[in-house]
Amino acid sequence: MYQYTEHFKVRDYECDLQGIVNNAVYQNYLEHARHEFLLYRGVDFADLARQGVNLVVIRAELDYKRPLTSGDEFYVGVNFSMRDRVRFQFEQIIHRRDDDVVCVQAMITGTGMNERGRPSIPRDLAAKLMGQTASV
Amino acid sequence: MYQYTEHFKVRDYECDLQGIVNNAVYQNYLEHARHEFLLYRGVDFADLARQGVNLVVIRAELDYKRPLTSGDEFYVGVNFSMRDRVRFQFEQIIHRRDDDVVCVQAMITGTGMNERGRPSIPRDLAAKLMGQTASV
Amino acid sequence: MYQYTEHFKVRDYECDLQGIVNNAVYQNYLEHARHEFLLYRGVDFADLARQGVNLVVIRAELDYKRPLTSGDEFYVGVNFSMRDRVRFQFEQIIHRRDDDVVCVQAMITGTGMNERGRPSIPRDLAAKLMGQTASV
Amino acid sequence: MYQYTEHFKVRDYECDLQGIVNNAVYQNYLEHARHEFLLYRGVDFADLARQGVNLVVIRAELDYKRPLTSGDEFYVGVNFSMRDRVRFQFEQIIHRRDDDVVCVQAMITGTGMNERGRPSIPRDLAAKLMGQTASV
Repeated sequence: MYQYTEHFKVRDYECDLQGIVNNAVYQNYLEHARHEFLLYRGVDFADLARQGVNLVVIRAELDYKRPLTSGDEFYVGVNFSMRDRVRFQFEQIIHRRDDDVVCVQAMITGTGMNERGRPSIPRDLAAKLMGQTASV
Repeated sequence: MYQYTEHFKVRDYECDLQGIVNNAVYQNYLEHARHEFLLYRGVDFADLARQGVNLVVIRAELDYKRPLTSGDEFYVGVNFSMRDRVRFQFEQIIHRRDDDVVCVQAMITGTGMNERGRPSIPRDLAAKLMGQTASV
Repeated sequence: MYQYTEHFKVRDYECDLQGIVNNAVYQNYLEHARHEFLLYRGVDFADLARQGVNLVVIRAELDYKRPLTSGDEFYVGVNFSMRDRVRFQFEQIIHRRDDDVVCVQAMITGTGMNERGRPSIPRDLAAKLMGQTASV
Repeated sequence: MYQYTEHFKVRDYECDLQGIVNNAVYQNYLEHARHEFLLYRGVDFADLARQGVNLVVIRAELDYKRPLTSGDEFYVGVNFSMRDRVRFQFEQIIHRRDDDVVCVQAMITGTGMNERGRPSIPRDLAAKLMGQTASV
């Protein structure tokens, strides 16, 4: 169902004074799941940054359905697609593990920034992101 | 122009390996600005939580326009309104201080949760949030 | 060799503008490893807090030997002991997984705080922490 | 009394499920105070990192005396000194603002790392850190 799935467990320091995972922390989870997805597709986010290609988020939409709390195990499902030549999107859903219930539903739109700060996704990078194997 | 404005300076630990403020950190900034706005309207988020009324975010939309980086000073403008009887919204804009340029534009929708986990915003709380003074 | 071991992988948002895991983040790792150790011994940190018994750190010593960076896998070894009737200590060592090299060596001293804010560790809690099975 | 003082206010997302500022967050406060001290002495941490000189913490000792909580204002006092040619130390004390009570007492030892990963503090950097004005 998902192109990629990453498993997590809530850490207590991620919970705030309401006793539930703080809103901002879900973006951390989503980012980590995206970067693991990238590795799975052969793209190393940190390496890219060192090479001057910065993948950046330009829009994030998050619907908070149910809070995660101390001790919860959960997973993030990831679906990637290109929206156009310079923008890609990640549909990401956070499920509590016990009952698969949806905790957060997110749509993250991103682009690549080259060293001159212009949106650009090199062709071979796009091919990798889409899971296309290299041609001869 | 804004109902409330909160000033900040980027802290180096908020920057990630790209050398810019990490995406999730903007949600921290936005939350802090909202909670300071609440105090300004006479509502203490932590007190409310202790009383069993949890204000929670149900949707966040963030448009990332320009990154903040080490040393940047910035401010968050806050506009609050009730969307309906149980939902409120915060329009929040992060401006770099030097040139007022917009870095992040956000719309945060929230509600109150009572102790039985039902959406509910007590009438006197709603009045405070809207800045209405108590009637005799 | 360790009473308990917890495995992790660096997440990119934990790295700062030097491209390595930020100093403060190691305390997050150490805390999570301690709380998982507690669970392993049958003690739930969040439950305790709800019951008014707060386990708190009173001293932390950390020696930073080698930085962890993007993509690194590592584990935290945990050794627990009671120092006296109201203080316990955790010797915690962070090892990079590939080569077992020591990245951080830490000694964390803690105590329990009862609801009146006095240092106190209930006898049955101490017994659990030390891994002693309940007597009949 | 202090060479430098930096003022803060607790942000709610910095509090954990015990309702107090999480242990690791104090290291964030201390780091930010150190970096502001550096700027005050004419040294930009992020610039240094870009130039390949990384100031790193090699040892942190923190004594937690009193917790900070939601709404607290506080300040961090900073005293800097060179311990030897390649190591410097920061004595840092976190005071609650209302009553000046000590919340955390810390001693942070650091060094510079050059691009080959060797401890080294260029002479002009050391002079700046110690607040010595440039000679003619």
